[in-house]
Amino acid sequence: MEARTYPEFSTHYPLLLTTFMKRPVSLYPDQVGVVYRNHLSGDYARFTWKQWHRRTSQLAHALQATLGVKAGSPGEPGDRIGTMALNTHRHLELYYAVPCIGATLHPINVRLAPEHVIYTINHAQDKVIFVDDTVLPLLEAIYDRIKDTVETFVYMSDRPGLPDTRIAGMVSYESLLADQPDEFDWPYLHEDTNATLCYTTGTTGQPKGATFTHRQLYLMTLHIMAMPGITNIPGHDIAAGLGVKPGENAVPLLNTPMFHIHGWGAPFLHVFSAQKIVLPGAFTVQGFCELVEREKVTSVGIVPTVAAMLLEYEDLPKYDLSSLERIGVGGGALPLGLKTKLERMMPGFRVSSGYGMTETAPTTIVSFVKKHMVGWERQRLDEVMVKTGLPVPGLEVRVVDEEGQPVPHDDRTVGEILIRGPWVTERYFREPERSAEAWQGGWFHTGDIAKIDADGYIVIADRLKDVIRSGAEMVPTVLLENLISMADFVSEAMVVGVPDPVWGEKPLALVSLRPGHQACAQDVIDFLVEHGVATGKITRWMLPRLVAITRDIPKTSVGKYNKKAVRDQLDRYLAIATNVSSDA
Amino acid sequence: MEARTYPEFSTHYPLLLTTFMKRPVSLYPDQVGVVYRNHLSGDYARFTWKQWHRRTSQLAHALQATLGVKAGSPGEPGDRIGTMALNTHRHLELYYAVPCIGATLHPINVRLAPEHVIYTINHAQDKVIFVDDTVLPLLEAIYDRIKDTVETFVYMSDRPGLPDTRIAGMVSYESLLADQPDEFDWPYLHEDTNATLCYTTGTTGQPKGATFTHRQLYLMTLHIMAMPGITNIPGHDIAAGLGVKPGENAVPLLNTPMFHIHGWGAPFLHVFSAQKIVLPGAFTVQGFCELVEREKVTSVGIVPTVAAMLLEYEDLPKYDLSSLERIGVGGGALPLGLKTKLERMMPGFRVSSGYGMTETAPTTIVSFVKKHMVGWERQRLDEVMVKTGLPVPGLEVRVVDEEGQPVPHDDRTVGEILIRGPWVTERYFREPERSAEAWQGGWFHTGDIAKIDADGYIVIADRLKDVIRSGAEMVPTVLLENLISMADFVSEAMVVGVPDPVWGEKPLALVSLRPGHQACAQDVIDFLVEHGVATGKITRWMLPRLVAITRDIPKTSVGKYNKKAVRDQLDRYLAIATNVSSDA
Repeated sequence: MEARTYPEFSTHYPLLLTTFMKRPVSLYPDQVGVVYRNHLSGDYARFTWKQWHRRTSQLAHALQATLGVKAGSPGEPGDRIGTMALNTHRHLELYYAVPCIGATLHPINVRLAPEHVIYTINHAQDKVIFVDDTVLPLLEAIYDRIKDTVETFVYMSDRPGLPDTRIAGMVSYESLLADQPDEFDWPYLHEDTNATLCYTTGTTGQPKGATFTHRQLYLMTLHIMAMPGITNIPGHDIAAGLGVKPGENAVPLLNTPMFHIHGWGAPFLHVFSAQKIVLPGAFTVQGFCELVEREKVTSVGIVPTVAAMLLEYEDLPKYDLSSLERIGVGGGALPLGLKTKLERMMPGFRVSSGYGMTETAPTTIVSFVKKHMVGWERQRLDEVMVKTGLPVPGLEVRVVDEEGQPVPHDDRTVGEILIRGPWVTERYFREPERSAEAWQGGWFHTGDIAKIDADGYIVIADRLKDVIRSGAEMVPTVLLENLISMADFVSEAMVVGVPDPVWGEKPLALVSLRPGHQACAQDVIDFLVEHGVATGKITRWMLPRLVAITRDIPKTSVGKYNKKAVRDQLDRYLAIATNVSSDA
Repeated sequence: MEARTYPEFSTHYPLLLTTFMKRPVSLYPDQVGVVYRNHLSGDYARFTWKQWHRRTSQLAHALQATLGVKAGSPGEPGDRIGTMALNTHRHLELYYAVPCIGATLHPINVRLAPEHVIYTINHAQDKVIFVDDTVLPLLEAIYDRIKDTVETFVYMSDRPGLPDTRIAGMVSYESLLADQPDEFDWPYLHEDTNATLCYTTGTTGQPKGATFTHRQLYLMTLHIMAMPGITNIPGHDIAAGLGVKPGENAVPLLNTPMFHIHGWGAPFLHVFSAQKIVLPGAFTVQGFCELVEREKVTSVGIVPTVAAMLLEYEDLPKYDLSSLERIGVGGGALPLGLKTKLERMMPGFRVSSGYGMTETAPTTIVSFVKKHMVGWERQRLDEVMVKTGLPVPGLEVRVVDEEGQPVPHDDRTVGEILIRGPWVTERYFREPERSAEAWQGGWFHTGDIAKIDADGYIVIADRLKDVIRSGAEMVPTVLLENLISMADFVSEAMVVGVPDPVWGEKPLALVSLRPGHQACAQDVIDFLVEHGVATGKITRWMLPRLVAITRDIPKTSVGKYNKKAVRDQLDRYLAIATNVSSDA
């Protein structure tokens, strides 16, 4: 492929993940680039960039020569390679070797319901699956339902050898690499070659497989890297909102599972930035704290649930977490109460907010401070940073009403978020109808609803399907959840709509309490009246009519509130709910 | 064009300068975005982003409706629109209106020799030329030679009305805009549409017209914006090397002429970054200082000649230049002596180095500190920052010997710099043979030679044609120039090869003295012996055999040393040169 000449390397110089992979090894071959800690044994493995690149090259040889993996071309994905893996160095090797030979990486979300895991493997037609030892039980459980699709299973473990398993012809990752040449002549692929396939969580039917090309992932990464260039206040900038610290000396912890929408882009961003990457296997609070302390982690992206777990971890004060400068919270709206509590508990913690979805690769909206806000007081800035944010430069984002007209910037009127730009998925894999439906009118329809304030900040109000329609009005449940979570006694809060003969729907709040705290349903309403209604943030008719104090708030596999699960078992939740009144 | 739908706005969402133009007006419509100072009258004009965007929209209408300018398509440039203009708000309007309707902007280098200006206008086949009042005399002088090519001349001035001129049918810019609608429906062009045409200075024959597409300029800008993301030490990072300060609150002064290789990218970078842009008309030392003081300019890119002029400006201490945090020096190698003197004179001045050329749009190599250098002492860091630098991420740069093999990283062996990447020109306009010649083997051949050190830093040694071949050795003239310029008594130094019957060539040094200093030819050699030979930086056989103390060091239109001019009039320079010896 090196034989290509003028003009293909000029105007059409391809935007490839290969460029990211080559950068750290050329700049810092002998520096440790990848650190992995086994979350069960606590053992560490460290690789210089040269070592990591050598293993990735060996993997590329193995994929082509041993496993017969074929490359794709624009519009025609290459063989799909599934991973059932946690955040390990091997997964990071797969993240580059598979796309950079022109095949498609399919990071399988092992937290989906087994039926959905089976569906995605068969739908993707995965030719090979790479499985971590800790995930093997899941693979064995679903083996009979996928064995006709998958040709080869590759076993990844920190211990040598193969397990005692009924899976036929399993080979070990390390033996696969062992005899391969340690240099690989990476091809200059067409940039529109498919690189990854990421399935949605499928809360509304079967998961959909969003496809991404090299070009799309390159451009998402580059636009995110450009964001420190529009910084206004350090710590309140657009990169901080993602938990990204710029600079080659930053040490990011890849906490978000790499099977979850490209680990929010971290495997691309941090390799191209030549930062030392810290991989925790699976998340544990203890592992998180140990890695931050030992590796001097500077930055991390987490979901609200992880933040809540850290907050409740009793050994937290025993660790030196002072290196941690930036924490981005995504994958769910960040309750202001949770943010305040975290900052109080860990000085140096600066959290902010963002928005994205599988189909957007995911980063699209991030909180950062506009230039005229420089000099504002901390509390006022915090109120800005907890808003979902502003579009990442390079993307077009609109919030439109049911007629497709942009909503006014009045911080009140809600509409659906539409997006287009260089890294929004073009199509769902083998789903032309659902692709066309999502792309009506030249805009990708997110199904999420939001409002916009006078400064242009977008605030996610809800999922379209989660909005409570009470009378002629829409009650944004996320606003209620944020307010409730500000109460000292509250750990988490979810609000869903319950059918009502008069109003159509009425709000039900599920509230979990922080350890050591006591509160009843009426306390929740009293808090909302004092901090919501009295301050003008909500109207009285938005108040929940039903409140259940419970530890049982269902989540999706990625830690988001699972409102569908509540609606599916509504009777169970109504049975523990209390009718409340705001007149008490 | 808005009617395009799925899938054109996803994978193929076009990378357009239009995206840059839209960003500041959508974020900061009512903030002052563009400040222009007339360098003759000293008058100021200020525009909010909304006002600037309205004028740009009116210009787009005028181009299409009044002037009949046609858009191009990939491989088929639209009408060429020439500008003979300084750094004004009108030039910045042209920088967006012309490419964003699909036409080609041809910023004419008005400092070229008139014969070359005539050549470029006729070669580009400019349909319209926009001319500043101060440049009108040049246009009148060449009018008869271009009037058959150019259909319309548009006159740009801060004063109303038209001048008394023999140019037929001239129209005024402001009247052209006056009645146009102030909104424009910007098309979604194909990203490979030609956007600009920039001619080389033609030191070796007729100027060549390097063409750039929207995609190429978008990607250059985005990669530069991503560079703060790999910052290791503030002030020693890759952005500082370009005189770029990140953040919307930065105030860049566009000092580099916008007719000189996209003003080093500033018109793109600073608009997309939504920074307040300060335009000085033409450079004057007094105007420079006044603008820095009044507008609190934070950052600027300059050429070494401008640095030297500032250094010699006697009123410099009268101005408050403390806002100036970052000065990037490009367009010529930065002599360490000049850097040291500037930093001594202006605290806060941090200068560094870079490399680029017309064909590379131009930014390709920039000095910045690698991660293991954090903690080094200031002097040692300075020695790094004065090196030409490291490739901008995303570009491939090689230094190869005459067999095309990469040179060792030994800080000694020199070779030619080859480049490829997303923003290197694909072709010279209407020059297929010269295009193919430059792109032999799939790499763009720069004709510049360099060496590489163990840390990967590239140091420009010379122009291929400027290297002195003395005996079997190559004498890098830039190295000698840098050393000589470190002497306190030296303002500037140029070294060229003079034919010699024994050695092939021998070095001749032209040296200008700083005001108030006295020195003779032998002082130059003594300095080189003490600070060059004795320190091992050069060998004794590299010493100049001839030295001329003179204020007459010829420069090109862009302020680079014009060695060709010296070789063309060699007798004149030999007549004032002194034979020197290193044994004295």
